[in-house]
This record gives sequence, structure tokens and C-alpha cells, in this order.
Amino acid sequence: MQQKLGKWSLRFTEAPFILESSSVVGTKEADGPLGGLFDIVGKDDRFGQNTWEKAESSMQRDALTMALGKAHLDASDMDYVFAGDLLGQSMATTFGVENFRIPWFGVYGACSTCGESLSLAAAFVAAGYARHAVAVTSSHFGSAEKQFRFPNQYANQRPVSATWTVTGSAAFIVGSGAGGNETQTGCDNEWTGGDNADSISKKVQIEGITTGVVVDYGIKDAMNMGAAMAPAACELIVNHLSDFGRKASYYDRIVTGDLGSVGQKILIDLCRQKGVDISKNHEDCGMKMFDATNQNTGSGGSGCACSATVLSAYYLPKLRSGELKRILFVPTGALLSPVSFNEGESVPGIAHGVVLEAVM
Amino acid sequence: MQQKLGKWSLRFTEAPFILESSSVVGTKEADGPLGGLFDIVGKDDRFGQNTWEKAESSMQRDALTMALGKAHLDASDMDYVFAGDLLGQSMATTFGVENFRIPWFGVYGACSTCGESLSLAAAFVAAGYARHAVAVTSSHFGSAEKQFRFPNQYANQRPVSATWTVTGSAAFIVGSGAGGNETQTGCDNEWTGGDNADSISKKVQIEGITTGVVVDYGIKDAMNMGAAMAPAACELIVNHLSDFGRKASYYDRIVTGDLGSVGQKILIDLCRQKGVDISKNHEDCGMKMFDATNQNTGSGGSGCACSATVLSAYYLPKLRSGELKRILFVPTGALLSPVSFNEGESVPGIAHGVVLEAVM
Repeated sequence: MQQKLGKWSLRFTEAPFILESSSVVGTKEADGPLGGLFDIVGKDDRFGQNTWEKAESSMQRDALTMALGKAHLDASDMDYVFAGDLLGQSMATTFGVENFRIPWFGVYGACSTCGESLSLAAAFVAAGYARHAVAVTSSHFGSAEKQFRFPNQYANQRPVSATWTVTGSAAFIVGSGAGGNETQTGCDNEWTGGDNADSISKKVQIEGITTGVVVDYGIKDAMNMGAAMAPAACELIVNHLSDFGRKASYYDRIVTGDLGSVGQKILIDLCRQKGVDISKNHEDCGMKMFDATNQNTGSGGSGCACSATVLSAYYLPKLRSGELKRILFVPTGALLSPVSFNEGESVPGIAHGVVLEAVM
Repeated sequence: MQQKLGKWSLRFTEAPFILESSSVVGTKEADGPLGGLFDIVGKDDRFGQNTWEKAESSMQRDALTMALGKAHLDASDMDYVFAGDLLGQSMATTFGVENFRIPWFGVYGACSTCGESLSLAAAFVAAGYARHAVAVTSSHFGSAEKQFRFPNQYANQRPVSATWTVTGSAAFIVGSGAGGNETQTGCDNEWTGGDNADSISKKVQIEGITTGVVVDYGIKDAMNMGAAMAPAACELIVNHLSDFGRKASYYDRIVTGDLGSVGQKILIDLCRQKGVDISKNHEDCGMKMFDATNQNTGSGGSGCACSATVLSAYYLPKLRSGELKRILFVPTGALLSPVSFNEGESVPGIAHGVVLEAVM
């Protein structure tokens, strides 16, 4: 059966499932509105390491280990890991995944990495290339600020459009339907996703994916990533709805990664210009993560871990419990490099879409 | 049919083809032993740009444009581009691919990127997800030295184990068998691959792939990348032969990416310890690229572009002409980050294997 759908999308004939997932976050994230939902919270943001980069790798190890534990699977059961992060040469992932000895396809999609890695993991499972594939990503406020902006010790002022890089990591084990049934049965008791734990019954299927292109609106403000990413998110959503022949209202939620409150306004306006109204069902993981007023996080949370941890801890339980039926998950990435930025280049955006559906 | 083979490999039921490819190099590469084989040579290494990073993006654009031209295809015929480079946040690729508006999966595999991107492109075509997918990568001596080692102006001394980052880019259009036939017929006249141009008749099939894990031997010498990568290459080759049930002698050539002469010795020794003799059929793209003695390039060429341009300009024509029948192509990557390196971390390696076979 034809799986390619339109120009930008795939609809899987044998749609795979997210069998299990896990989330690890730092202290500030734990203090936010979703604080009680995450699986692991570090007692401080160093996670027992002496550098931010090693702390980030440590979170990846914890996330992957926890997800394997929930699924009652070993690392050797994973056929592939699709993983990446924000740092130069994906260094958090190199040292995060190395001890698991899982064949690794390194990915780079800036903060859209969760969407890219889930897309590839789903594609590999749906093609029969893998029985299980795991998608992992991470970000860390300390390592990201140090790399992209200013030394933390400068205590530089942040405009309201600035976002706050989430310290965290998440891992998602994707498997085929058959594997899903077995695994789900074996691990229901271990799910600790807050209030919904008792009512978990549905499985979360990845029905299809829509893959993004680089979208460059010429934004040159590294403190306004929402504006850099909103055009890419808009284009992804419009392309997705066109490919699948759907209205925005088909989805209970259209969930972007880390546009923040500033980026959300731009996205809703841009979509409206294209004749698509997402004002009623759009949510943004960056706006869910922090209490912007009391936590002084500006426009919202950002980073690869933002969409990844919020998906794992907040949205997946709502799909499993039946509270939500269908989500278009759209992690967004600002293709910001400190070198190209300092050379006067713009900050293009990209977004990757994943259709998540709750099924019995 | 089962496509997963052993623990680390896939053998495609519907094996895709490399329909066309292209290579772009700088001046030093053009002065080397393979100089006459490359498609495009820059008149200087800036490629009309004012920074090394932009020059690298420019080479990607040239490579992709040339490959599309050879195949008589438009960018809109490409369902996906799998592309990445060595630079932080894959910046050369961001600006290299953006104007083509092809759905982009960003990849990171250090200098093994050509193997990773070809693997994913082949997997997507073989699964029926894409009619055409293109794999692109690049590296640039200027941007790499600046990022990883010392400012070029230091004119620092280089030990004999140091390699020389290749300035170049290559693009590979992967398609299904049917597409291949049509396309090949239409473009034979345009192939400019040196002496073999008249006798081209065979198609190059990607029979399967073997995917690498992070292998860390604790190497901490950023001037000896061959030693960092050789263990990963050894493990990949041994895993591959085990998965496919083959002897090393099955292949006319086992071709690594950029181990250089220092890394080659280590690889051959390590393989011998595992009971695998590759001494007779091993070649390394890094040793092909330059005349080490006269060009003062130390152990050999390196960088994502090393294996990619040598595959496109040197090995693919030999497969098409029938001079070679089967190659195990093993681009090798040193997972070197200047940040983690300066924090005292080791330089792990990775390698990705692609089986290339000439068929009628």
C-alpha cells in the first residue's frame, strides 16, 4: 500500500506504537506546573557530574534506562537508537548512548529533534527494519546557554521574547503492534504518570509523519527563537493538513515544541493567513513547562528536552487515559549556530510533525 | 521477507540504487592523485563566499545541483534529503540545503556521515517511503580546523598521525530499481568520470547496511583520529561479516573513510586479532585523496567529504565499469567535540557500513 502521502508525509500501513517513554528533568522544571509528572528529578542540575555537558549525558542515560525498565526490555532488544541534542557534534548524545551499544543513527534537528527521532524510529519499525527502536534527546540550560549565548556568570538580562532552555531528557521506545501488546501488559503497573495511572488502557499509535524543510524568514535575533520557528511550524502544519486532507479541528490538540507565548501568537496569525484556524486547539510545550510569571522564564521553555519531556509526562498519559484522542505533535527547531550567527547569518527554523492517536 | 539480518544489519528485499552522484572539491584535493576525477573544482577554497562556513554550504549546493542535473531530476523530485556535516549545529547543511525545500532529516555521524546518510536514504527508498532520496555531506579544511583545533593563522605544527580535512562535498541520489533504469538511460552522456566514461553500463545497488555503535577506546589525542576510529571500523567490519555470513574476501574492496596510513595499520591489526584478514583488500579514502609525501598531509585526508567525494569520483565509476564488483564502504567518524575534548573526555569512534554491488 502506498505510504507516501502528498509531498511531505507518510501514513504508515503498519502504524507503530510508542510502547513506553520516560522523562528526566532538573530542579527548575520540577518546580513548574508539570513538576509532579516527570519520572526522575535531579537533586541538582549537575546530575552527579562535574560539567553541564556530562550532566546532560547522564540525563540521557537515566531516561533510556528508565524507559527500558518500564518496558521490561534490555538495551540489546533495541535494534536502533535515533538520538541527538543541541550541542556541537552532538556531544551529550555521544556519551549518553555509548554504553548501551545500540546501533546509533545520530540526528540533528535543533529543538525539533524529538520529532525527527520519533519520525525515523517509527519509519524503521513500520518498515519491519526494527522490532524496537528508541528515540532519545536532551538539553540542558547550562550547556546551552554557555554554547549559544553568554557565560552564565555574566547574569545577562533577558528580553521577554527569550525562552528558557529546559534541563531534561526523554526516551521513547517505539515498537510494532504485536510487541506493544505484550509489553504494555507487562508494565502497566509501573506507569507513574500521576493521576491517570489507574485508568491507563489505550495504546498510542504513530499514525504518520510530516517532515519539515528549512524555513528562513531572516530572523537575526537569537533572543527570539519563537519568531524564528513559528514560520516553520506554520508551514509544517499547513502541509500536514493538506497531505492528510484534514481540518485543524480533526486534532484535539496541535502541540508545538517551544514557540513560547511570543511564538504562539505569530504561529496562530500565520496559520490564519493561510486559512487555517488553530487558535482553539493549539498548545505549546514551552508554555506548559514553566510558570512564566513566577519562574521568570520569559516566553516559555525551549530546547530539545522541552517538547520531549512534556510529551512523555503530560500528553502521552492523556492519550492513554482517553482524555485526548488525537494529537499532531510538532517539535520546532531554531537552526541557530553561534558561529553562523556571529557571522551575520539568520536563524532559520524547522519543524517535524508526528501524528499520535490513542487506540484500544 | 525478513530484512533485519543479525544484530546490526539490514539486507533490503528491494535493494535501491545510487542513481547518480556528484563531487565538489577544493584546490588541494584537485592537486592530488584523484584530481582529474572530481566533477567540480573551486578556483579557490572560498567558493565565492566570505567565510569558510558559507563556502562549505556553497559546495553542498553545487554538489546537490550537479547530482540533480546528472539525473535529470528536479529538487521537487526528491522526497527526502539526509544530510549533515562536522560543524556545530550542522550549520553548513542548514544553509546548504535550505533553498532546495526538500524535507530534511539532519544527521550527525562525524566523518561517517556519508555512510549514515546513504544508509537512511537507502532504507527509506527500500521501504517505499521515497521514490528518490538524496544523501549530502561536506567538510572544509578551514571551517574544521578553526572549530576543532587551532586558528589557521597559528600555523601550528602537525604530527605525522594528523590527517588533513578534505574541502569538498558530495551528493548521492538514491532511487528504486525502476527509477534507476529510466534515469540511467537518460543521463549516460553526462557522466564525466574520467577514462571509464565510455564503458559505463552497470548499476550500483545498495544491497544492505550495517549500523555502528559508539566505540570508545579512550583515545585522547585529537591529532590521531585514525587511532580513535580504527576500533569502530574493526567492530563494524567484524559485525557486518558475521551478520551477512561472509568472509572478508567476498568483497573486492573494504573501503574505510579516513583512517589514514596510521589508522589503517591499527585496523588491519585489530581485525587480525578477531580472525579477519583484510590486509589484501582494504583501502582507505583518506590515503587515496592526497599524495602524503608531496602534499604534506600527514596520515591522509579526513572529514565527511573525504569518503563521500572519493566514493563518488573514484569507486562508483569502478563499480559502473565492472572493474570492481562488490565493495563494503565503511565511512568512519571520530566523535570529537572541542568542548568535551577540552573537558578531558576521550574521542570515541563510530562507523557505518554500506554494501555496494555492481549489477547489470
